[in-house]
Amino acid sequence: MTGPVVLERRDLHASLADPALLSMNFLNEVAGRFPEAVSFAAGRPTEEPFDTADLHRYLDAYCRYLVQAKGYDDTQVRRELFQYGRTKGIVHELIARQLELDEGINADPEAVLVTVGAQEALLLVLHALRSSERDVVLAVTPTYVGLTGAARMLDLPVRSVPEGPQGLRSEDLLDTIRSVRASGERPRALYVVPDFSNPSGHSLDLETRRRLLRIAAEEDILLLEDNPYGYFRAAAGDRSPTLKALDIDQRVVYLGSLAKTCFPGARVGFAVADQRIAGPDGSLLADELSRVKSMVTVNTSPVAQALVGGMLLEHGGSFLRANQLQIGIYRRNLERLLTGLGRRFADVPGVSWNTPSGGFFVVLTVPFPVTDGLLELAGVRHGVLFTPMSHFSDGEQARWQMRLSCSALTVERIDLGLDRLAAMVTEHSATLPATAAGSGTTQD
Amino acid sequence: MTGPVVLERRDLHASLADPALLSMNFLNEVAGRFPEAVSFAAGRPTEEPFDTADLHRYLDAYCRYLVQAKGYDDTQVRRELFQYGRTKGIVHELIARQLELDEGINADPEAVLVTVGAQEALLLVLHALRSSERDVVLAVTPTYVGLTGAARMLDLPVRSVPEGPQGLRSEDLLDTIRSVRASGERPRALYVVPDFSNPSGHSLDLETRRRLLRIAAEEDILLLEDNPYGYFRAAAGDRSPTLKALDIDQRVVYLGSLAKTCFPGARVGFAVADQRIAGPDGSLLADELSRVKSMVTVNTSPVAQALVGGMLLEHGGSFLRANQLQIGIYRRNLERLLTGLGRRFADVPGVSWNTPSGGFFVVLTVPFPVTDGLLELAGVRHGVLFTPMSHFSDGEQARWQMRLSCSALTVERIDLGLDRLAAMVTEHSATLPATAAGSGTTQD
Repeated sequence: MTGPVVLERRDLHASLADPALLSMNFLNEVAGRFPEAVSFAAGRPTEEPFDTADLHRYLDAYCRYLVQAKGYDDTQVRRELFQYGRTKGIVHELIARQLELDEGINADPEAVLVTVGAQEALLLVLHALRSSERDVVLAVTPTYVGLTGAARMLDLPVRSVPEGPQGLRSEDLLDTIRSVRASGERPRALYVVPDFSNPSGHSLDLETRRRLLRIAAEEDILLLEDNPYGYFRAAAGDRSPTLKALDIDQRVVYLGSLAKTCFPGARVGFAVADQRIAGPDGSLLADELSRVKSMVTVNTSPVAQALVGGMLLEHGGSFLRANQLQIGIYRRNLERLLTGLGRRFADVPGVSWNTPSGGFFVVLTVPFPVTDGLLELAGVRHGVLFTPMSHFSDGEQARWQMRLSCSALTVERIDLGLDRLAAMVTEHSATLPATAAGSGTTQD
Repeated sequence: MTGPVVLERRDLHASLADPALLSMNFLNEVAGRFPEAVSFAAGRPTEEPFDTADLHRYLDAYCRYLVQAKGYDDTQVRRELFQYGRTKGIVHELIARQLELDEGINADPEAVLVTVGAQEALLLVLHALRSSERDVVLAVTPTYVGLTGAARMLDLPVRSVPEGPQGLRSEDLLDTIRSVRASGERPRALYVVPDFSNPSGHSLDLETRRRLLRIAAEEDILLLEDNPYGYFRAAAGDRSPTLKALDIDQRVVYLGSLAKTCFPGARVGFAVADQRIAGPDGSLLADELSRVKSMVTVNTSPVAQALVGGMLLEHGGSFLRANQLQIGIYRRNLERLLTGLGRRFADVPGVSWNTPSGGFFVVLTVPFPVTDGLLELAGVRHGVLFTPMSHFSDGEQARWQMRLSCSALTVERIDLGLDRLAAMVTEHSATLPATAAGSGTTQD
């Protein structure tokens, strides 16, 4: 066989053509084709606080910390930034302190594994938990496409725990666990975003959190708690503690994304994996994960870690303090989006939405199918983009829903986008028979 | 089941306890326990050129390039550094240009996938090539532990192509391919470091390179060419072109590490994967790999990429030019190591070594087994460290060999380390029966 190589799809791992991976691609590609559209599609952070001078300052702040707090000399500082380094990371102590300050989570720094974004942490945990072909992971559905994609890459089946209209109910988790076990599979963990979930915007109340921890203990599964949005609650007032803060038996692996609290370009995240491994050395799950990490990315760029560390140091070790501007922006935007939806759709038959108390996302239900075709049409004819919920769930309900993200927009663009969305809804509703159900919001 | 979680090893993926992954850990741990020892163990780059001011300057140089060469405004520059970005990376054009300048490799920038070190690139390629349980990867053995570890993580078997005393012979590759096929397995690719291989230091001559490409075409396998050391040849004079430079049929996936030419802390590497995928859209393997990358690390930190880009821009786009100081240091060190070995071991029965023409590594053969226990003893009693070759190969020959790395040492430390090594060899040789074979070097 000579001549240029042509690889056949059947000779490549099946995950490469998996809907979960193609979906991410399609969404990026659509966004690229309509750069002028108002995009409620992108779940990215606001760009308002970004300032290149910060990068230089963060780096210097971290170097000063190495000298002053750690007693490093110049050679050691340079080695820390430039050379290969600790697989588990170098800002683990700062992260442990941040978790205590901002979350009341008591994390042993040795149980903190710094990763290339929370995505790598998720991949490593899923990999570790796949000990045989019987093992499966559970996911609250609709779910983050990064969970589905990573699991597909690892040939780890994902079993859905469907969300109700108010979010996850613990009885649905129990039902799923039982039916999964009945089919001979072994559920290892539940992937859950307890605060302002992506994509649905739901949050778990305190009682549900406690019940999840109880079920995890009784059913011997872990909880993979992903918390990218927890700091961004809309109204002042109590936020429920994270699952990890309530976790006394190490049932929770906490996945930390810093893409929203620091910035995505750092590509720094982490896992708190304080579970003990049976055996004489009693190592932590974090140590086991770090061995696999050394085969995935070797270690997380210490320069990138220094940027995160420097940002923390500038704000007394707290992301909550570092994000005061962002918290205000996201609160303002979510309010504007919800008010704007009310103004435009309150009396439109068949249109409803939830009212998350924070985060980036609102789910809008419409009386016509929300397909990829509709998304393209919305881009071409109406200049507005959103994410069809069918990318996050195979369920029937998701077919009529779209995720609206308001995190990276100005209030003017939110208003403009909603006007365009309303025009699209009017156009499509006009073609429907007059059977549409009630309107208005469902409560979150 | 209540009370603190204790995870059983049998419930975790088998790779977590795999010798390849444990080996990396053990070696790091030993190095940590003897910080005062002269370490011929670490394959890390010299720290002499590291300067924190460079990081600031590289970042600024890249930002200027975005403005001047790309016409970016301030918002676009900030977005590029801080926000989520292109999965395939942002310095792909600079890397393609560098490959042309320094290597004569003609790479389509769209076929360049920027990764979190070459390790991630390797993982992604191995993952893509595992389409069924029949698929295996071939590796020139002794081999880099990062190849073995990544393959174990992916449940992809590695089949060895043993190196002869002068390095890889194409007939051994053919033999392995045939025996692998005879056992019902399908060889997908050969992993090979053609220049100054890790761990053996061997290089392939031009004729062997051409033969590998011919075999790859005839046997329908890919060549995974890893080239971390190619710029560091000891003597002036011709270096054989890379496999990728000779590759006219896209048989070669080129894996680029920048840990040695730029610095390890950037954690930036890349793959050139210009293989076409069958089908109407004719996408490149790089595009397929990027979809999986989005499930592993999302994208490579753009700040880290900017550092690499800035370094290239400061040196006219060439790593060869950027590494003049390093090339001199490695040349000097390898010469010192080889001269020092000759001075101390030329007449010692049973001791021999190869004479690589560049790179970081020399393999020393001794008349007693080189075990992990011996390494510990060397640390405790002699204050010198090395890497037992048994970490890179199960073969009989490797049991009597150690890898010596001279990249991160001064000439004074090399001399001191060799004195200590000689003391250890004398001590251990004294306990042997007088049956040891000849002495002196084998030619590389």
